[in-house]
Amino acid sequence: MLENVRIVMVETTHPGNVGAAARAMKTMGFSDLRLVKPQGYPNVEATARASGAGDVLEAAQVCDSLDEALEGATLVIGTSARQRRIPWPCLTPRQLAAQLSHEPEETRIAVLFGREDRGLTNDELRRCNLHVSVPANPDYGVLNVASAVQLICYELRLALLGEDFDLKEARSRREAMPLPEMFWDEPLATNEAVAGFLDHLETVMEQSGFLNPEQPGQVMTRMRRLFMRARPDKMEMSILRGVLVALEKKMKEGGNP
Amino acid sequence: MLENVRIVMVETTHPGNVGAAARAMKTMGFSDLRLVKPQGYPNVEATARASGAGDVLEAAQVCDSLDEALEGATLVIGTSARQRRIPWPCLTPRQLAAQLSHEPEETRIAVLFGREDRGLTNDELRRCNLHVSVPANPDYGVLNVASAVQLICYELRLALLGEDFDLKEARSRREAMPLPEMFWDEPLATNEAVAGFLDHLETVMEQSGFLNPEQPGQVMTRMRRLFMRARPDKMEMSILRGVLVALEKKMKEGGNP
Repeated sequence: MLENVRIVMVETTHPGNVGAAARAMKTMGFSDLRLVKPQGYPNVEATARASGAGDVLEAAQVCDSLDEALEGATLVIGTSARQRRIPWPCLTPRQLAAQLSHEPEETRIAVLFGREDRGLTNDELRRCNLHVSVPANPDYGVLNVASAVQLICYELRLALLGEDFDLKEARSRREAMPLPEMFWDEPLATNEAVAGFLDHLETVMEQSGFLNPEQPGQVMTRMRRLFMRARPDKMEMSILRGVLVALEKKMKEGGNP
Repeated sequence: MLENVRIVMVETTHPGNVGAAARAMKTMGFSDLRLVKPQGYPNVEATARASGAGDVLEAAQVCDSLDEALEGATLVIGTSARQRRIPWPCLTPRQLAAQLSHEPEETRIAVLFGREDRGLTNDELRRCNLHVSVPANPDYGVLNVASAVQLICYELRLALLGEDFDLKEARSRREAMPLPEMFWDEPLATNEAVAGFLDHLETVMEQSGFLNPEQPGQVMTRMRRLFMRARPDKMEMSILRGVLVALEKKMKEGGNP
């Protein structure tokens, strides 16, 4: 269904953003890019920012009008940072995703992205079936246009492929972790405290003769994984540090039965 | 809670991406940016791409090491495009958001983003409590680093502010465990294997002199809780058993430096 989605960039002024948008699209599996009167395009900066999505950029259709870009579309979605004077059906990207999961397969979707400085005009927005607005910082909600393309394409991919929800249903080879407990008695150890403990553990494992520093293999990686995923609290780190110190002392003295 | 999140960019090579990341952060309400050994920074391109987020860029802390950038963090999240040889708890951004909705307010979160060309090193990824990977086009899944920052910050904003759906439920004082990973390389240890290890650990702790069998306090309860919630796999149990056997031997022999 991804092939039924086109991204339409209207009068983009920085060609670098066109390249970055092509890349954002390709990472999410989209390839139909249409450019309405792009400024200074084509351009080497567009190519550079497209990175491995040069094919999407090269295939981009340059259009003289929005009409041309929207030809055949059955659902037109306008991106907008702010609510206009006359309210329009306006969804968050997540709500849009939920909406699209109910669409029939043949729906041909166009998502419009406006100019870097002032977005889509009121006329352009009125051409849309619905508007989508990214929940953002009220003090500064101006996303870069290619970042907005990335974010919308990400939500569309999840909605259209259903990848996110499938992940939860698919059988894991790893059993589920415990559910969160409601109360905990100790604050968590900091990252550096756990790192310090793991270094100390490694030293003691070498002193014990278990770990050969010449051939360590993956042993410490496995120990790190175990303790990092457990997210030890401060008391646990303090106990384990105490044990390591006591072990070092005993290994020096010897004489245990 | 947004102020408890820091974005850590490790050895970024294109300063423009640092600026774009600052902008992406600010649009989602985040402001704590840390740069580990950024190349060619500061730079006019960084400033240009930051656009209205010059304040975030100016306040960015340049760090000599990852340790410095992670100071005080209690939950470290690494972004990674691919699965490594030894799998780590790995979530999608959406699963991460669900996870964070259970975190207590004081959790200090660091999200790591790696180099443009090769991401984070294995060593850096092992410093993380969990990994997050964006579901992407299997043929070309390489997001621009600033686009990745945009996307993760967007999911974090929705999760932490509860703007999108019902994540507003009462927060736990205890951090949630990672959700199940899709693939794990080792089968889990059985309950009796973990119980046997814990008995053995107790014996060794007593032999070391750390644990007084007359006055054990809550020490073993805490150790049990730590290892039970981590749900060790068979390989981890086998390593830890081997370490305990080696320690017992050394404590008998003595003579360690």
